[in-house]
Amino acid sequence: MIDLDQYIRDVPNFPSQGIMFKDITPLLADPNASASCVSMLAKSLREKRIDKVIGIEARGFFFGSRLAAELNVGFIPIRKKGKLPHKTLSQSYGLEYGEDQIEIHADSIQPGDSVVLHDDVLATGGTMEAAIKIVEKLGGEVVQCNFLLELSFLNGRDRIEKFSIHSLKQY
Amino acid sequence: MIDLDQYIRDVPNFPSQGIMFKDITPLLADPNASASCVSMLAKSLREKRIDKVIGIEARGFFFGSRLAAELNVGFIPIRKKGKLPHKTLSQSYGLEYGEDQIEIHADSIQPGDSVVLHDDVLATGGTMEAAIKIVEKLGGEVVQCNFLLELSFLNGRDRIEKFSIHSLKQY
Repeated sequence: MIDLDQYIRDVPNFPSQGIMFKDITPLLADPNASASCVSMLAKSLREKRIDKVIGIEARGFFFGSRLAAELNVGFIPIRKKGKLPHKTLSQSYGLEYGEDQIEIHADSIQPGDSVVLHDDVLATGGTMEAAIKIVEKLGGEVVQCNFLLELSFLNGRDRIEKFSIHSLKQY
Repeated sequence: MIDLDQYIRDVPNFPSQGIMFKDITPLLADPNASASCVSMLAKSLREKRIDKVIGIEARGFFFGSRLAAELNVGFIPIRKKGKLPHKTLSQSYGLEYGEDQIEIHADSIQPGDSVVLHDDVLATGGTMEAAIKIVEKLGGEVVQCNFLLELSFLNGRDRIEKFSIHSLKQY
């Protein structure tokens, strides 16, 4: 069991004034700590039926792709609008000012698929909430919302409380 | 040895009219084919000293992070301008119209580090050329430019011909 804190760097005022950003690049740079995280992310999923792991652009791709490999299932990317080439399904979600959209390939989830959604950080929960909607529209079942880190003071859990949530470290 | 063609989808007119896009999402969705690719990407690197694998945003993150794990070395992201939170080094590169910038964390490469650069597709070579420059500015040595696919008709090799190039499939 590693102490994740040793591999997370606090960067003040990023991406904007007053925000303390949790930088996971020191974790990515350490192969043993990264491998340990993949194993911990996969914990509690090994006895479940999982068909696919979905990673959310872009930082959800780092460990999402490795989690899929660890569980020996397919990896599906959810991307920002306009990045996926084939037929997509879109979902809007609110930002502090205005809104944004995420997309998934419409043929990437089959009805009845058991899906794990992975992102690096659970903050306000807005992106994950949109990701859940998009998966459910395609008939997929969300088995778990899976994160490296959770910023508890932003209460992101409240928006996705109907779903199983697994995060390695809470702040 | 898998036939990669079976897992690559041609999407016409993406991202713009007249471009035939090579979509790797069917490959990502297949765990066995993906695992086979990781193994093939790592081939020829196992006997070399490698300190870090660098993946280029965003599609270079999928297999770049897995290649780093396969080689048991750290993973470093090169990102688009403004995405990395800490002190960065930037490099411009030309696009068809105008230019773009990539960035790396300035402390992510130590002088003398042996580095593998990974991206999904070698097209014109412009992004990889910029990535090489940024690594060399930090004192790193590029051991290999590593790709899933290579669009040979775009002659990207010419721009990075001084470097070792490994791609799994040429079109």
